[in-house]
Amino acid sequence: MIQGIAASNGIAIAKAYLLTAPDLSFEKKTIDNPNTEVERLEKALDVSKDELEKIKAHTKKEIGDEHAEIFSAHLLVLSDPELINPIKEKIKTENVMAEAALDETANMFIDMFKTMDNEYMRERAADIDDVTKRVMAHLLGASFPDPALIDEEVVVIANDLTPSDTAQLNRQFVQGFATDIGGRTSHSAIMARSLEIPAVVGTKKVTTDINNDDIVIVDGIEGNVIVNPTDDELATYKQKQESFAKQKEEWAKLKDESTITADGEQAELGANIGTPEDVAGVLNNGGEAIGLYRTEFLYMGKNELPTEEEQYDAYKSVLEQMGDKPVVVRTLDIGGDKELSYLDLPKELNPFLGFRAIRFCLENENVFRTQLRALLRASVHGNLKIMFPMIATLEEFRQAKAILSDEKEDLKQEGIKVSDQIEVGIMVEIPSTAVTAKQFAKEVDFFSIGTNDLIQYTMAADRMNERVSYLYQPYHPAILNLVSSVIEAAHAENKWVGMCGEMAGDSIAIPILLGLGLDEFSMSATSILPARTQIRGLSKEKMASYKDKFLSMGTAEEVVQFVKEKTE
Amino acid sequence: MIQGIAASNGIAIAKAYLLTAPDLSFEKKTIDNPNTEVERLEKALDVSKDELEKIKAHTKKEIGDEHAEIFSAHLLVLSDPELINPIKEKIKTENVMAEAALDETANMFIDMFKTMDNEYMRERAADIDDVTKRVMAHLLGASFPDPALIDEEVVVIANDLTPSDTAQLNRQFVQGFATDIGGRTSHSAIMARSLEIPAVVGTKKVTTDINNDDIVIVDGIEGNVIVNPTDDELATYKQKQESFAKQKEEWAKLKDESTITADGEQAELGANIGTPEDVAGVLNNGGEAIGLYRTEFLYMGKNELPTEEEQYDAYKSVLEQMGDKPVVVRTLDIGGDKELSYLDLPKELNPFLGFRAIRFCLENENVFRTQLRALLRASVHGNLKIMFPMIATLEEFRQAKAILSDEKEDLKQEGIKVSDQIEVGIMVEIPSTAVTAKQFAKEVDFFSIGTNDLIQYTMAADRMNERVSYLYQPYHPAILNLVSSVIEAAHAENKWVGMCGEMAGDSIAIPILLGLGLDEFSMSATSILPARTQIRGLSKEKMASYKDKFLSMGTAEEVVQFVKEKTE
Repeated sequence: MIQGIAASNGIAIAKAYLLTAPDLSFEKKTIDNPNTEVERLEKALDVSKDELEKIKAHTKKEIGDEHAEIFSAHLLVLSDPELINPIKEKIKTENVMAEAALDETANMFIDMFKTMDNEYMRERAADIDDVTKRVMAHLLGASFPDPALIDEEVVVIANDLTPSDTAQLNRQFVQGFATDIGGRTSHSAIMARSLEIPAVVGTKKVTTDINNDDIVIVDGIEGNVIVNPTDDELATYKQKQESFAKQKEEWAKLKDESTITADGEQAELGANIGTPEDVAGVLNNGGEAIGLYRTEFLYMGKNELPTEEEQYDAYKSVLEQMGDKPVVVRTLDIGGDKELSYLDLPKELNPFLGFRAIRFCLENENVFRTQLRALLRASVHGNLKIMFPMIATLEEFRQAKAILSDEKEDLKQEGIKVSDQIEVGIMVEIPSTAVTAKQFAKEVDFFSIGTNDLIQYTMAADRMNERVSYLYQPYHPAILNLVSSVIEAAHAENKWVGMCGEMAGDSIAIPILLGLGLDEFSMSATSILPARTQIRGLSKEKMASYKDKFLSMGTAEEVVQFVKEKTE
Repeated sequence: MIQGIAASNGIAIAKAYLLTAPDLSFEKKTIDNPNTEVERLEKALDVSKDELEKIKAHTKKEIGDEHAEIFSAHLLVLSDPELINPIKEKIKTENVMAEAALDETANMFIDMFKTMDNEYMRERAADIDDVTKRVMAHLLGASFPDPALIDEEVVVIANDLTPSDTAQLNRQFVQGFATDIGGRTSHSAIMARSLEIPAVVGTKKVTTDINNDDIVIVDGIEGNVIVNPTDDELATYKQKQESFAKQKEEWAKLKDESTITADGEQAELGANIGTPEDVAGVLNNGGEAIGLYRTEFLYMGKNELPTEEEQYDAYKSVLEQMGDKPVVVRTLDIGGDKELSYLDLPKELNPFLGFRAIRFCLENENVFRTQLRALLRASVHGNLKIMFPMIATLEEFRQAKAILSDEKEDLKQEGIKVSDQIEVGIMVEIPSTAVTAKQFAKEVDFFSIGTNDLIQYTMAADRMNERVSYLYQPYHPAILNLVSSVIEAAHAENKWVGMCGEMAGDSIAIPILLGLGLDEFSMSATSILPARTQIRGLSKEKMASYKDKFLSMGTAEEVVQFVKEKTE
């Protein structure tokens, strides 16, 4: 059994599919029969071409033509006589095995192209490198895995899953996944919850301890991975899987119920989404709002900025699907760990403390204004609220709001309808803003506390850095004090406060946040029904009576201990 | 006139010395007379050797034998027939100019050595690269500057000054400096104040707008650089220089006075130091304490950890020089932007939010224990206080303190004397610790607020990143609220609070901090007497009456405006 971090609920049982680079080392030998080697090479080339055709077709279907083009380029490389003939020549004239001939010839071309002062040629070097690795794997009898090649039920095992890996994952076949690195807030964890498949991350060793075709159980509830289980274990987990399915059915009964505590107080449960396609999952899971619509996805995975029209269509779609339910759209939060190649953002020593989000938007007003216009135009199609990310000072908020008013005026002048009910708020994710929430509360319409960033800045610990991840403590009294003072400041001005970080869906945090008076909890769609179940069993008054106690505790551990005692 | 950031007080007027890499590009030509080229080469080699001898001698004197050795290696390269003969051969056989022969031959060797899997050979490649650049500069009639070559009064102009540059600067000749990048808290600014020479940093363009031998005025009071001044300007600034000298004399009269406000309240003015050699400057400037002894310098610029003995000697020296005045020693704060090659710390995506300071020490107990033993042994020689940096949680403080107690017990068992009066405190530089200061105040003996880091974490803005440096706002109400709550929490438990960030010596901040009740201000030694002068003119009661006003203001700008009005 391998322990990791529970990243997405549920139990998956299936064969392992390792998404890891195969070992391509080999011992160079001379050979007797060059013809056999040429045949081996041709067979490896054929298998590789078949795979690339499959990957290309899958990519085209799942992501689009533009991305599929790269595989056309790869296929061309494998059919290029200028590359293939010299390999065959080498086998015949030097009596070397196909592996060595492939390796040496490919490297010669790669070195040649790489040193050329020409972007196109350098890309060709990368193409050749990618493609010959696949051929080499097949020569060595290994496989060269790719998410697009999966065509049976598996559990994916990887060091980490990149956004492009997860974009390719086939929901039909992929039952769950387990990774070496990452935490609850890493990209792969968030994706797992959005795909509603069980996942365990941060195991440190699944890729070394698991082989292809091992039977693997991913327990995304407890955060365990079991390799080649005994019959007993298998039976136990199949039962666990069934009871989880039953629990899901129980949760599903609350889909259309409101979120009311045992003592009759109302809370709102929203979801965090990335694309219009996510809305169906939110409604299926009984979401009462979109608490955070991350608009970055509109800007990612392409070669240029999205047009006003593209954005308008996306915002309109989300708003229309949600009807009169609130939709909080966060304006572009790019930079930091999220890069956009076409914007040519500067490399930074500490990107998390750098030029990102509203900082970028206020210096690139054209980008910002396009998004605001699209949002304003879409506002008539639903219940839109606009939220600015990474606000650290009142000046930034005032400046952003002024630009928004400016665009609103322009649209009205142009005779375009804009809603007059749009609330304008901010993310509270920088300590300065939490500390001066009183001052902000007079000017904003609402706050949404972004705990993922707020925690890392407050604790001065990069949440992606394994060496200091023990300091990423959502229940630390400092975080609770900041959250509490934000809520108090907002309520004193009759404004509402949401939370859209991972903490909002956490079963230890929920009772505390209820006690501190949080109005809206926004989380992964699949967390909504468990959260509703939990909240319906809690007394808000009782949790509120512990508030001073929480705020004066010394450590996160004391907090957790206390919550567990009081909610048992 | 070029505007920048005033980094160190005073006015310097002298010729410019550009510490920038010369343009080494040339157009390759064939030549008629190879002998002339060989002569040119030999002359350039001779000049380069002379310079390297000078640099070596200077380094030996200023920094030590170990560092001078690298220049011995460089000199050997220039005398190596295996490198020099092929260059001469190339000139003669290919009829090329000396520049091309040097360039091609050197690059051949560099490429050859660089690809070898051998640390020693790779270092040789770097040596050849360094040295041939100097020879190339002389061939091209350019100069290859080095701080050690300065032998007349100059103002140094550079993009930035590295720690090794400043270590080489000759106080006798260098009148001041101006840089393109950096801010008040960057290394070069702190060094300028420690060397007591005027400096302006962050000008963005001194290296492009100023040429060697231009007459330059560095106005470190206003943050201006004037290039080739008119006679009128020269006269004005000479007068300004004189009046600054007079003001310094005035300040000097307060050297042995205590720091008492106009309404009779006492404050303590300490200094931040890096080495035992800095103590003389502290006493000359009337320092009442060492508020921060940065022990990193003991660990830097060497190939291994300092021994307990080396550390003991340094701590003892500082303590003895200070007599019964308090000396706050900060335990090792390494990592982040401060790397130690021999510790092999991991590269991090966000080093400022990474594995550093106490986080490193608690995982490398042997390093930490050696330092604590040296400190404990030195404690009998003066008034020692020990301070742990980057504390984010109570657990960390408890763990560090337990290790300290453990070492104390061990020493006592060994019959070694240790003071029983050592106060143990923490840096407050992480927001979580400022927010939960009440909880900490029960367990620590004192706090020292490290504003340089506290500001960057609270505002989520890397203070070294020019793109977001506008967010590094010491007067932001969020910072003032955190500082105020730390002071309140400490005083409620009868503990004292110091501040050892740059803010403590800032003339806008001092009145505010006095009003918030700060007990100890620790700053660059040269800021102490101006601060004392200022504090003697302020009423603490009056400043305290503005406290609520400061804390409820919306922006840093309002705060500055208000302070200026009230202290005029």
